[in-house]
Amino acid sequence: MNVGKVGAKTLRALSKAPARTHVSLSARAASQCASPGSSSSSHERPHFPCVDAHAARESRIISSRSVSSTPPVSSGPEPPYARPNPKSYKVYRHTSPLPLVYADSLPSFDIAYETWGTLAPNKDNVILLHTGLSASSHAASTELNPAYGWWEKFIGPGKALDTNQFFIICTNVLGGCYGSTGPSSIDPSTGEPYATRFPILSIFDMVQAQFRLLDHLGIERLYASVGSSMGAMQSLAAGWLYPERVGKVVSISGTARSSPSAIAMRFAQRAVLMADPNWKNGFYYDGLPPHAGMKLARQIATITYRSGPEWDIRFGRKLRKLPDSEQQRPDKPRTPALCPDFLIETYLDHQGEEFCLKYDANSLIYISKAMDLFDMTAPTLSELRLTPPAPRSGPPPLPPSLSAHPSSPAHSQYHHLLSHSKSHPPPPNPPLHLPDLAAGLQPLANTPTLILGVQSDILFPVEQQREVADALRVAGNQMVSYYELGGVWGHDTFLLDVQNVGGAIRGFLS
Amino acid sequence: MNVGKVGAKTLRALSKAPARTHVSLSARAASQCASPGSSSSSHERPHFPCVDAHAARESRIISSRSVSSTPPVSSGPEPPYARPNPKSYKVYRHTSPLPLVYADSLPSFDIAYETWGTLAPNKDNVILLHTGLSASSHAASTELNPAYGWWEKFIGPGKALDTNQFFIICTNVLGGCYGSTGPSSIDPSTGEPYATRFPILSIFDMVQAQFRLLDHLGIERLYASVGSSMGAMQSLAAGWLYPERVGKVVSISGTARSSPSAIAMRFAQRAVLMADPNWKNGFYYDGLPPHAGMKLARQIATITYRSGPEWDIRFGRKLRKLPDSEQQRPDKPRTPALCPDFLIETYLDHQGEEFCLKYDANSLIYISKAMDLFDMTAPTLSELRLTPPAPRSGPPPLPPSLSAHPSSPAHSQYHHLLSHSKSHPPPPNPPLHLPDLAAGLQPLANTPTLILGVQSDILFPVEQQREVADALRVAGNQMVSYYELGGVWGHDTFLLDVQNVGGAIRGFLS
Repeated sequence: MNVGKVGAKTLRALSKAPARTHVSLSARAASQCASPGSSSSSHERPHFPCVDAHAARESRIISSRSVSSTPPVSSGPEPPYARPNPKSYKVYRHTSPLPLVYADSLPSFDIAYETWGTLAPNKDNVILLHTGLSASSHAASTELNPAYGWWEKFIGPGKALDTNQFFIICTNVLGGCYGSTGPSSIDPSTGEPYATRFPILSIFDMVQAQFRLLDHLGIERLYASVGSSMGAMQSLAAGWLYPERVGKVVSISGTARSSPSAIAMRFAQRAVLMADPNWKNGFYYDGLPPHAGMKLARQIATITYRSGPEWDIRFGRKLRKLPDSEQQRPDKPRTPALCPDFLIETYLDHQGEEFCLKYDANSLIYISKAMDLFDMTAPTLSELRLTPPAPRSGPPPLPPSLSAHPSSPAHSQYHHLLSHSKSHPPPPNPPLHLPDLAAGLQPLANTPTLILGVQSDILFPVEQQREVADALRVAGNQMVSYYELGGVWGHDTFLLDVQNVGGAIRGFLS
Repeated sequence: MNVGKVGAKTLRALSKAPARTHVSLSARAASQCASPGSSSSSHERPHFPCVDAHAARESRIISSRSVSSTPPVSSGPEPPYARPNPKSYKVYRHTSPLPLVYADSLPSFDIAYETWGTLAPNKDNVILLHTGLSASSHAASTELNPAYGWWEKFIGPGKALDTNQFFIICTNVLGGCYGSTGPSSIDPSTGEPYATRFPILSIFDMVQAQFRLLDHLGIERLYASVGSSMGAMQSLAAGWLYPERVGKVVSISGTARSSPSAIAMRFAQRAVLMADPNWKNGFYYDGLPPHAGMKLARQIATITYRSGPEWDIRFGRKLRKLPDSEQQRPDKPRTPALCPDFLIETYLDHQGEEFCLKYDANSLIYISKAMDLFDMTAPTLSELRLTPPAPRSGPPPLPPSLSAHPSSPAHSQYHHLLSHSKSHPPPPNPPLHLPDLAAGLQPLANTPTLILGVQSDILFPVEQQREVADALRVAGNQMVSYYELGGVWGHDTFLLDVQNVGGAIRGFLS
């Protein structure tokens, strides 16, 4: 880095010099900070601020650790999630074992939660709000924590989740790192963090933990279960596990069966994270966290959260503004850098940098895996020994052909029930998984359900939204509300489009 | 890894034991090889074969280096690309400087190339075939190299590129690592590999190097320039730089303006590569190559090469077959692993593993950056001081409104010229870049051009194919052939669909 600084100083000193060749050489030395581009005239090795950033971050973590009085240096750095503030949320501690789908059980667990609005005397106005992968229970500001929440504009008096009417509960998910038990929590049997000794979780386990909280609060029945993205998976799972306890289900930009392409994108994130030498098979809690891997993973994730059309409008092919230290030669086009140079690159870099110390790497691995594992088709539910409860008031009988041939293409048989029969052309091939999904979703046959998707979503594409709505209808559900939104915000639409997402929810809940 | 081996042996010894609890505990210890899932009953730390693979690969590289007599240990490992076999291809050595778009020049360069068919006496039957990012000049088997080539089924007597009729030349691209000069080549001014002292390349530079080869071969005019993916960019650039020397242009699954979302996907690949500690700012040629970063980068790339629908048909949510050493508990569903477990994950893992030592990391970085930089809109070409040559036989005049308002939406003005006016609905918004692109492509106004795209391509989406075809038509080109293919193969269709891709090319060239 000294080379770059010297180069920049030299450049400033020479920048008014008349001898153009001198300026040009110096300018090139300076621009090497980020831009290899000179071959023969300079033999200095270029350096790369985007790579140096990982080492610089590591130094910051170490130095912030050593100036802090507690914890001592030997206990390792403390990212924000390792400093939970129990005054900003409530915690329910469950002291008996929680049976799990894949592993035996968790011996005990904590669930962090926050609430908004007032619980009705008969407790019939409760909405359970489920989060996406990395969110905390802080969906909106509270008296305990006035900071802006991740769904701030959707929760409040007169808003989509109307606090004049409803009592809203949001939890940090089991497996998370914002106050609920997860891989970073202490394993009572060892006195050390679970790390990758933590059991594999399923979305159903997360929902079971939430219902233990509801039991504790004496809430027998939810007015509605609401969630987006992974929260939509939980929302569907809640209605499936407890048809009698869930009044309505809202699923926004979710799925009932994770697709191979979504698994691929999450696999890529886990792979870069687990390849970070700091990950140490998950046992990094007494050392440096895998911050570089987390940054890279978040960059990949961010690509899946928005859409190409949005980026084309927002960033196009625009380049970052050059600092003075990276002056360019006047006789050549601007030298491109291998480090982030296009605005789309600096955007992804920034998103990764912002996130990499905010969230626990093992939580990301476990929760993203739970999303991959989510599959509500009947054969998978059966393999998981998840016995479907009866729908609330007796299911309508399955069409005989469906039960007889659960894997046969449903295209021709159920065409009149399918979403695309109304406003969308039918897909080129019959929906592969519809019969199995319809059989799996049978317990939701009598639960009013809102399915909302976004046409520009590449992570939970609109075909999957149609699939869930269609499967519910084929299962006999006559109370399916189905909306598709346009726009360019992609998967993140659920965080941004207060008018359309909020409006659909408000209408469905009222 | 010893733990896992012992666990597996113990398991086999105990697998017929009647005491089920013993088996179950041992089975769990063994399954920890890949699957964390037991919390309280085992305090052994799980390990991860997918992470161990990076260290094992490193050991293999080191040991293969030390048993080899040449090169000596001190010269570092030698991946295949570092052992070019000059007998399997021809090399043209250009000994004078090549001016570059962004940097000054390359002092000299090599271009590796192969040929098929027979050059006509008047040299009028030449097809220049351009490669995608990572391909060598070995597009099809030759006498020098009988190995199967990357476009084997498209080149030969009676095939898409008919060797009975044409003389086909394919080069390894400038910047590559299969015999042409790139970052792994020796910088004559230092005697060391260029590494990241190599100048930033543009697609236009690559084409200029190819035309120096044509000059050397005495080939004044190409019958056609043909390419797919990055090769399509080169193909368009060739027709643009040399309208008088290029008879026809074929662009398959390419673009004339890299989009922010394609840049984002390539940025993610470069970022994981550059974060590999072995990358060392590009100066890794005397040590271990960044093989782990290359594997991760290739995994991400592979996601963009195929399509979700293909994976849904091919892999679905199927899991890998478990080896005997990972027996599962009979009373529980199969324990999921955090390492690759779904077939889609093992597929990506395998693709990454296969590639990571086959290609030079710096070549990947430089060439993927050249793709990002590719933009044939008039304002960018002007910034790059690329002066448009005149089209072959005088261009038709631009519509006056286009020259007067180069950035105005062309939607209403040119609707009758647009691809979607025939078989596709118009996009919701007017095409943003059409006027600038039409102005930029003006030199191609009189060159017969085939644009072919694939509807399931997520890297070079079909909208970009329509955009190129539309821009050429708006520029006055009345010889644009335009095809869209269906199917589920995504971007890789150009490698797979001999019947449709090959057929379109054959028809266009004849």
